[in-house]
Amino acid sequence: MNGADVLCDTLLAGDVDVCFANPGTSEMHFVAALDRKPAMRCVLGLFEGVVTGAADGYARMADKPAATLLHLGPGLANGLANLHNARRAGSPVVNIVGEHATYHLPFDAPLTSDIESLARPMSAWVGRIGHSDEVGERAAQAIAASRVNGGGVATLILPADAAWGETSRTSPVAQTPTSEGIPDDPILREVATRLRNGRRTLLLLSGHALRADALTVAGRIAQATGARMLAQQSNARIERGAGRVPIERVLYNIDACTADLADVEQVVLIGAKAPVGFFAYPGKPSDMLPPGCEVVRYTTRGHDALASLQALAEALGVTPDAAVTLAKPTPPERPTGALTPASIAASVGRHLPEGAIVCDEAITSGHAFFKLTSGAAPHDFLALTGGAIGAGLPMGTGAAVACPHRKVVCLQADGSGMFTLQALWTQARERLDVVTILFANRGYAILHNELKQVGAGEAGHNARRMLDVVDPTLDWVKLAAGMGVEAVFVDTIARFDDVFALAMRRPGPFLIEARI
Amino acid sequence: MNGADVLCDTLLAGDVDVCFANPGTSEMHFVAALDRKPAMRCVLGLFEGVVTGAADGYARMADKPAATLLHLGPGLANGLANLHNARRAGSPVVNIVGEHATYHLPFDAPLTSDIESLARPMSAWVGRIGHSDEVGERAAQAIAASRVNGGGVATLILPADAAWGETSRTSPVAQTPTSEGIPDDPILREVATRLRNGRRTLLLLSGHALRADALTVAGRIAQATGARMLAQQSNARIERGAGRVPIERVLYNIDACTADLADVEQVVLIGAKAPVGFFAYPGKPSDMLPPGCEVVRYTTRGHDALASLQALAEALGVTPDAAVTLAKPTPPERPTGALTPASIAASVGRHLPEGAIVCDEAITSGHAFFKLTSGAAPHDFLALTGGAIGAGLPMGTGAAVACPHRKVVCLQADGSGMFTLQALWTQARERLDVVTILFANRGYAILHNELKQVGAGEAGHNARRMLDVVDPTLDWVKLAAGMGVEAVFVDTIARFDDVFALAMRRPGPFLIEARI
Repeated sequence: MNGADVLCDTLLAGDVDVCFANPGTSEMHFVAALDRKPAMRCVLGLFEGVVTGAADGYARMADKPAATLLHLGPGLANGLANLHNARRAGSPVVNIVGEHATYHLPFDAPLTSDIESLARPMSAWVGRIGHSDEVGERAAQAIAASRVNGGGVATLILPADAAWGETSRTSPVAQTPTSEGIPDDPILREVATRLRNGRRTLLLLSGHALRADALTVAGRIAQATGARMLAQQSNARIERGAGRVPIERVLYNIDACTADLADVEQVVLIGAKAPVGFFAYPGKPSDMLPPGCEVVRYTTRGHDALASLQALAEALGVTPDAAVTLAKPTPPERPTGALTPASIAASVGRHLPEGAIVCDEAITSGHAFFKLTSGAAPHDFLALTGGAIGAGLPMGTGAAVACPHRKVVCLQADGSGMFTLQALWTQARERLDVVTILFANRGYAILHNELKQVGAGEAGHNARRMLDVVDPTLDWVKLAAGMGVEAVFVDTIARFDDVFALAMRRPGPFLIEARI
Repeated sequence: MNGADVLCDTLLAGDVDVCFANPGTSEMHFVAALDRKPAMRCVLGLFEGVVTGAADGYARMADKPAATLLHLGPGLANGLANLHNARRAGSPVVNIVGEHATYHLPFDAPLTSDIESLARPMSAWVGRIGHSDEVGERAAQAIAASRVNGGGVATLILPADAAWGETSRTSPVAQTPTSEGIPDDPILREVATRLRNGRRTLLLLSGHALRADALTVAGRIAQATGARMLAQQSNARIERGAGRVPIERVLYNIDACTADLADVEQVVLIGAKAPVGFFAYPGKPSDMLPPGCEVVRYTTRGHDALASLQALAEALGVTPDAAVTLAKPTPPERPTGALTPASIAASVGRHLPEGAIVCDEAITSGHAFFKLTSGAAPHDFLALTGGAIGAGLPMGTGAAVACPHRKVVCLQADGSGMFTLQALWTQARERLDVVTILFANRGYAILHNELKQVGAGEAGHNARRMLDVVDPTLDWVKLAAGMGVEAVFVDTIARFDDVFALAMRRPGPFLIEARI
């Protein structure tokens, strides 16, 4: 048995049975080993950003890691942007990065690079296998590391000779997911005391606290104590929709955000981070909270969010039958007027099937959706967590692999969609039930706003050449068709509503280019 | 005047007047400054791998750096693979990487990452600006660093507040390119002595030694001393074709390469590295030279290749009128038979206009081209230097920006083409005269070979799912059209020859999908 076989067995024993891959020569023994393991589902991405973004989307929905297979330093580098998003999402991911044989490294062959230096910024754990005898142990460490603190990116570097070398240490080491349980008593008591101290309190939620069961408990606590409840600005996954506890998010715009939070006197963090500006702007604050506002952390991402909230409710005397307001179903009215992000959101909201998974990388076009769909059928909402664009199409791909019986709807801006458009091919290859709504505003609309925000003025010739995606315009129907995904162009809301309704009734993949 | 203005002025004063860009919010002041500088040509790439690959191609042809504009750590990460190729090519590149304002960094906003750790593996120089007063000096350092040792990647990190901050230190510091001249006398004498010692000698060339003028001198030396002459396996640029000194390259296949070099007793490196295996294989050597073969370095990339070779010729008594064999023009016969890499090479060879620039990322389909076109019209040949795929289309884009009056021909494999297909949009946007020959073999053909080479056997189900790009097949005519590039599909050599001949006569961009 060689190291590559042990690696496969260890992954499977650790409940890692999907491998998003873009392999190269140095990974050929691992490819051959995967060939001998029908239990491992191998999903090819035609670019590594698809591979890592799919692993992120998969982890968000499966609550366990997929493996990625990446070719040396440059292959890892191509996947780093979406690993950055996975890191911010707290998604468990196990990267297998091929490397030259150990004895070959000193020769500095063309593809040699410092893989650790590339991996570290986006990884919670980085390990290198030295010999085929170490493969099982190191792989088990990587799987375990991916599940620490609620989930993280673990990067395992696999030299070719460790993969092809024979080993007698063949027992794969199975792993148990780590949970930190609930916070210690003193913290629980402090938070409970604060929630009764009469100050204007914000419960700020992220991570598993945004799953429906935990949200219900958090909603009861907020309602009973008079606290306000908000989700972090970007979150890996929110379970929302009609019949669930609705939650708004921290605002993106600095001025609106600071105004919105101006009267908050204390914040309780539940798996969330204190709100900060997404970017810095001249003369504007980085900290979104008002001066003097106190911040106390109740749970980290590693805690059991549901159990922690239940313990807090109990300490506060909030019982499981305490009142909580749930989102009412939105009346399914057919939208009229112009084709805009808002009318599209209304249409999506009325046709979205129960259990749908919405992946949002619509950037400026996505703001309307969240507001207008709190009463849509219950669904999961997955957002761009790290700001590294090119997340949406791969994320939807991975979510569909994780949940083959649920509809995936990608809300995708055109500018960011171009970064990882190769994901459409994987959707076609794997017959994934993904419907992409491509918001064609033909530019980096957000950057026109930001150019004003930073006080840099209106765009002139050079700026427009860098912010507008026109001359030529992109034809997404052709791009999708070129990768085997059926697509249509729409420019009226009536047509959009008809096409989207149809797309919800038949299996995907499918793409709707909406000219807004 | 703010830091961003000083940065632009310093770049322009340093003869950096093209900026390949994909900006974000943190770079908006730099974008605004570029807006005020009509002398700076801003070229948008819809993905950062296009931006950096274009900068590489530009540098190879312009012999000076372009700037890149990249958005924070993830934006840099997306560009790293082609920076890896640029590093291996010795291409001068000045990366401007936006960063959060210095005071914003401790807040760990979503896009925060360790940019230095990401940049270092692919950069010869990494610098961070601390304050707007430092912008001019640091930018000048970056430009200078990009020209050390013949050319390298310099990465300058620009915090937003250094860009928007006012400064009185406005004088841009102009830079002079660095050259190390010719090697010291003792080295010159040793090399000259060796070339007369009667042993079987290999002159191994790379860098500027592969330009026509230097190659002519090297060819005379080789011919006069009986030495064999070879180019490194992958090179930034070779000036070749009819009437020039022909040169073969070190072979890729390990067995063929070691057999080819088996009788070499000594190697003289002229801007090249000693030949090593591109990858390691079980039981095969890393070092391609036979045991006991001595290696002596004459020049590094930083030396003046032409002057160094002239000095060596003089020391050897090889005069400028010494005999040297030049490549004869290939008779322009119309190829017949099947559409194959070889018949395509024959067609390209007969229609290639003088001064064309050929960018080769055809991988398995590209081997035939080099052999069959040594007698084509004089042209430049740019190769994949670092093995990080996705180089070809961006490289052709950058070469066309550098040389607007020369025809660019990209030899592009389909698998690698998908990594940075967004480059086609930039070719359309900038009306670049690029003709892409897309070799559609519908898979990672090289990996099927490699799977056998490493002894891993024939591909089974999982392996084929990762190595074959079928089900669905890609339609490159639609992909190109979706980005505004006219394209045709051909599957006979007669049709290819007709279409390619036409493409050589009219301005591009244009793409030919050749089903091989």
